[in-house]
Amino acid sequence: MSNGSDLMHRPLEGLVVIDLTRALAGPYATMLLAGLGAQVIKVEEPKGGDLARENSPYVGRDGIQVVRRHDDDISISHLTRARGKYGVSLDLKTPEGRAVYFDLVAKADIVVENFTAGTADRLGVGYQACKAVNPRVVFASLSGFGATDHDGKAMDVIIQALSGAMYTSGEPGHPPVRIGVPMADMLAPVFTVIGILAAIEQRHKTGTGQHVDVSMLGALTSFVAIENWSAMAAAGMPARTGLTVQRLSPFGVFECADGYVAVVAVHEPLARGLFAAMGQPELGEDPRFCSRDVRVANATELEATINEWSRKLPLVEVVRALEAQNVPVAPVRHPEDALVDPRVVARQETMAVKHPLYRSSIDLRTAGIPIQFSGATTGFDDALPVAIGEHNEAIFRDLLGYDEDRIAALKAAGAI
Amino acid sequence: MSNGSDLMHRPLEGLVVIDLTRALAGPYATMLLAGLGAQVIKVEEPKGGDLARENSPYVGRDGIQVVRRHDDDISISHLTRARGKYGVSLDLKTPEGRAVYFDLVAKADIVVENFTAGTADRLGVGYQACKAVNPRVVFASLSGFGATDHDGKAMDVIIQALSGAMYTSGEPGHPPVRIGVPMADMLAPVFTVIGILAAIEQRHKTGTGQHVDVSMLGALTSFVAIENWSAMAAAGMPARTGLTVQRLSPFGVFECADGYVAVVAVHEPLARGLFAAMGQPELGEDPRFCSRDVRVANATELEATINEWSRKLPLVEVVRALEAQNVPVAPVRHPEDALVDPRVVARQETMAVKHPLYRSSIDLRTAGIPIQFSGATTGFDDALPVAIGEHNEAIFRDLLGYDEDRIAALKAAGAI
Repeated sequence: MSNGSDLMHRPLEGLVVIDLTRALAGPYATMLLAGLGAQVIKVEEPKGGDLARENSPYVGRDGIQVVRRHDDDISISHLTRARGKYGVSLDLKTPEGRAVYFDLVAKADIVVENFTAGTADRLGVGYQACKAVNPRVVFASLSGFGATDHDGKAMDVIIQALSGAMYTSGEPGHPPVRIGVPMADMLAPVFTVIGILAAIEQRHKTGTGQHVDVSMLGALTSFVAIENWSAMAAAGMPARTGLTVQRLSPFGVFECADGYVAVVAVHEPLARGLFAAMGQPELGEDPRFCSRDVRVANATELEATINEWSRKLPLVEVVRALEAQNVPVAPVRHPEDALVDPRVVARQETMAVKHPLYRSSIDLRTAGIPIQFSGATTGFDDALPVAIGEHNEAIFRDLLGYDEDRIAALKAAGAI
Repeated sequence: MSNGSDLMHRPLEGLVVIDLTRALAGPYATMLLAGLGAQVIKVEEPKGGDLARENSPYVGRDGIQVVRRHDDDISISHLTRARGKYGVSLDLKTPEGRAVYFDLVAKADIVVENFTAGTADRLGVGYQACKAVNPRVVFASLSGFGATDHDGKAMDVIIQALSGAMYTSGEPGHPPVRIGVPMADMLAPVFTVIGILAAIEQRHKTGTGQHVDVSMLGALTSFVAIENWSAMAAAGMPARTGLTVQRLSPFGVFECADGYVAVVAVHEPLARGLFAAMGQPELGEDPRFCSRDVRVANATELEATINEWSRKLPLVEVVRALEAQNVPVAPVRHPEDALVDPRVVARQETMAVKHPLYRSSIDLRTAGIPIQFSGATTGFDDALPVAIGEHNEAIFRDLLGYDEDRIAALKAAGAI
């Protein structure tokens, strides 16, 4: 893929992001912006910094460890989420620190924060204060329930519970299911990036920035809402269907001797293909299974018949038999296997991260930017705020034009 | 919220989208663009149209129905996903149809398609053909495994299985869990919108468009990859932990007499608050539970102790007792309850849809745009392609400048 020049650029090159975020949701948003080419400047408190620095496991000179042993052990969470970001230290509670912050904001296109709602304003670093310095700035707030709501901190499991996502997963009559991937933490940032880019587009027309405000509860609930639950209830359709969806039968997950497979054989040729793969083509003539309507009516029996076949066979054989009949089938994979799928590796949808000093004996594979551009690349600058304030000199001197004396004075004041 | 003028605009106003998408993933992407203010022109085959038109349940003169009874019954899927879109009919397999398509592309900023990979090019309507007509166009392809992969159709359940998302959810030793929300179908479009907006931003600098290519497998696997599974395995941390996460104990979902609650009491003051809410403050001095480390070491016992308390009480009482102690807690809600949370309703993160002719006795609540802008609104034009080709006249005459004769000839040729 080429845009005709030898040098491919990343699509957001030239945009500067001031990143006040901590933990997962906010840092994932700015990680996406960094991977798309924006220059992200991560601001941390001089003492403590991002809590994700304390997330176990760590990687360092002794490899992977549950407990930090050495000063230069790095949390893999931090290694992942702070990739490609430039790190500065700033105590926003000091006037000196805020003065530096506003110098950064004056140079910025975008500010992102995920403090508890209301905190940025209380610290004096919120949108109104930034707008006064730089009316072109797009200021994004990511919170549990919205920027004007004060219900306090929201964690992924709380939002999963409130959104209905947890209820809809799992078997009827069984407990709800906590989704293993932190969906609430991850989804709000994706919508935050959409909001930021839409506001940047609007800025091309208006010349001014604005406040973008995304809530974790809203983002995940909007996803849940794509199914019309009230209409489904009115139509007598269940809200939880477990491993299979009987109104589309056969559709869902089936058992093998050594694992599980997802199978979709909704339409006639697929159902016939499934029966052939099972070595029981006569099921296609069976009055219980010979048309889509009767398959749905006899779904429980059909699923039992399929499981009776599949559970005796190794997963690879079930997959092979169904593939030979062009029936959509896939193994239920362990995440470690999923992450090294050659297709996602080739597209850098998953990527390796590494400690800047030490090699790891295992591949530390993490999230990439799951978008391919024909006229641009994606990827991360070779930057990582290993220490808090790692790039103070570079940013304060080169971007803000501070001299040595000013930087020394800020240090002496404890502002950086 | 106001930008200082009386009239609020949507951020993407002025952008024109040609929408070739069908089913869920593609239409959700263009629905987001429509809600952000782009003019979306949905192109459907004159015969058949989008398969989502045939999704049960339907709404119409008889209310909600599982089976279509009247010509003007509308699938709620279609009502939801085609909101705010202008519908034209075009047979892209005819030269006349393709000629109209390229006239549309010449006026467009964005084209979105989610045909099986390779199909758009085979039909002669892919990126290279569009670029020849309009080098500024951003052409987005949404597919199962990537635009150059020919592994065929991908369905949500297949991608959930392959991505590892299904494996990580659920209890250790139990079967995997199909996530009730179609995460793979929904996530790829969100990244597609990010890719489109990033390419539009790049176009401001380069003057040219490009091909944006997002895969369902890549989007969902990148989410799964935010956890470092190989490092967790190396550190002896399990990949599936079910309703609770014992290394953060107490953290997770607990049982009440009439439902389930999510509770997070990881830190010392929260754990003390939980024990106070339980009426057993002495647990805070119990050698098994008196510090974070011992709570994690005795997580199974701690969880049993909490469940013993909570399962005897109604959910509302458990929530009230924990809230009184400022311990993060939330009921596991049914989606119907989640969708009408006043917070998400106020922010239009969920929205009502309605049949253009008939009132429904129940609130048909569906996904909104979960982003608030201080200087813009979001929302949908009052447009819906009820019939295939609903807006042929308006688009072909007003946007393309075709006269009556040309439109009549296209009809006669079966091209529209």
